[in-house]
Amino acid sequence: MNEFERIAAIEAILCPNRPAHVKVGIGDDAAVLTASPHPQAISVDSAVDGIHFDRQFSTMRQVGYRATVTALSDLAAMGAVPSAILANLQLPATFEDTEVLELARGQADASARYAAPFVGGNLSSGSSLSITTTVVGQLPKPALCRNGAKPGDRLYCSGPIGDAALGLHLLRASSQRSPALHPPDCAPFIDAFLSPQARIAEGMALAGVATACVDISDGLYQDLKHLCLASQVGAHVELANVPHAANFQRTAVENSLDPVALVLGGGDDYQLLFTLPAEATIPAFAACIGAIHSRTQGMCVTVHGRPITDELPPGFQHF
Amino acid sequence: MNEFERIAAIEAILCPNRPAHVKVGIGDDAAVLTASPHPQAISVDSAVDGIHFDRQFSTMRQVGYRATVTALSDLAAMGAVPSAILANLQLPATFEDTEVLELARGQADASARYAAPFVGGNLSSGSSLSITTTVVGQLPKPALCRNGAKPGDRLYCSGPIGDAALGLHLLRASSQRSPALHPPDCAPFIDAFLSPQARIAEGMALAGVATACVDISDGLYQDLKHLCLASQVGAHVELANVPHAANFQRTAVENSLDPVALVLGGGDDYQLLFTLPAEATIPAFAACIGAIHSRTQGMCVTVHGRPITDELPPGFQHF
Repeated sequence: MNEFERIAAIEAILCPNRPAHVKVGIGDDAAVLTASPHPQAISVDSAVDGIHFDRQFSTMRQVGYRATVTALSDLAAMGAVPSAILANLQLPATFEDTEVLELARGQADASARYAAPFVGGNLSSGSSLSITTTVVGQLPKPALCRNGAKPGDRLYCSGPIGDAALGLHLLRASSQRSPALHPPDCAPFIDAFLSPQARIAEGMALAGVATACVDISDGLYQDLKHLCLASQVGAHVELANVPHAANFQRTAVENSLDPVALVLGGGDDYQLLFTLPAEATIPAFAACIGAIHSRTQGMCVTVHGRPITDELPPGFQHF
Repeated sequence: MNEFERIAAIEAILCPNRPAHVKVGIGDDAAVLTASPHPQAISVDSAVDGIHFDRQFSTMRQVGYRATVTALSDLAAMGAVPSAILANLQLPATFEDTEVLELARGQADASARYAAPFVGGNLSSGSSLSITTTVVGQLPKPALCRNGAKPGDRLYCSGPIGDAALGLHLLRASSQRSPALHPPDCAPFIDAFLSPQARIAEGMALAGVATACVDISDGLYQDLKHLCLASQVGAHVELANVPHAANFQRTAVENSLDPVALVLGGGDDYQLLFTLPAEATIPAFAACIGAIHSRTQGMCVTVHGRPITDELPPGFQHF
């Protein structure tokens, strides 16, 4: 297929139908969205071969799904409702037509799951495969920013942290690169890495309620640091209260991995990390993992009340 | 600089101040734009090292400027007023901090010129340098689409076509890679390639008036074909009426280049190609280069009335 045939084939997969708010979709110079009464959230994220995914243990469909969901996660962290997606695909010359279509099917899976239509995109060649995804969302309630946490607030997460990092290590360490060939009790961890969710419903429930929110993409420690710096506060995290899938500790130790490092430094879970005033009603999905205190008290991490004094693992840094 | 220091340094260059319609800019999970009463145009475009630019004859500042302007050109083609820009930078590990900052300065040049603030972005590593730019614009008038041209309409362009392709050939062919070392009469062509303009004002003037519009990024022939296919019409183009900078023909021939191929197949001018009803008032910037006729008459290209019967050069195809 040439460039234009590829665009037509991708369009057929990504845009099976056009919702009413999309006046012009893929195929013109730009997409046109109808006016919205709400403020809008917009973000861009990229997934690069060898950096953010490994084709040895991810199918192209999983790569496309994951690239889209991790971009949508930024909307979840703002409390936004996804309304449009655009994708830029940079494809190596050797990339097969069948791979392009599988990638698009994964993107379409995410689009369908989160009811967010693809409205535009771009194809270019390049030495490595990368997917850059732009997401647009509507904000019917006040945006969840990073800078509103106050001393006295409690610190929460929306679900397991560290599971995805453990899953990634299991996939990397094993000679059995196929996820299906791992022991059954590894499945939740591998699945957490390969098929993350964007916590859109949770973000919407928190909008107007939480004082601050981020999604955990760089690791609990790094993302909490972002929240604390933006809010000019300190925080205490009790790792024993962080939720995990069953057998997290045992599986980590059996694979010579430090559970604390997985929780603090492992990104990829895309859970929301947020703060609520002490008097707020706590949503069912929220796990309390700590508290916000004054900036001068800094960041303190404990396990069953015992402070961790060793050097803390940094979040994943790209450079 | 580590990733977060780079983001801070880039932010300082890209966002010297935040306009009122940007409620949340770079630094949170997503940007937040205030609600707009107008429909919105949104598009994504990428510039990849070795494909869309050559670092041998473009400074990083030019690369950043050009990547941003060529993305904004898609808004011009819709008749939109730019309101926000986001950029994803994929940087090789060897990329120097000084290069990152020069790239950002070029992006900031374009942002300032078109009064469109950068509101977000993303950094990742990757084997090749690429800049993926998302642009958002407001549509106070009806969007300029590709599909409204009617038989009887006249075909126009907003300025010179082929100049940029000639400039690119001059840069590539010469051992004098520095633009400053070329003969003075080559300067308009080289400048057309290195420093294109997004025809925002022209697009705004055409919104609600032109029946169809595209920007010429793939070459006159290919982009006219897109317009004709979308509008289900045919067209006649008279190449003798296409405007150029002075000495275009002579410079092309002296450099063993076919002027017709440069005009039909050369992209990179980012002029608007549009159609107006016969009775419309013609804007001062518009050059009439042909007419729209019925689909069954196909596409016909003439030079001083003589049809070109040789195989037409295709537009630049990425694959």
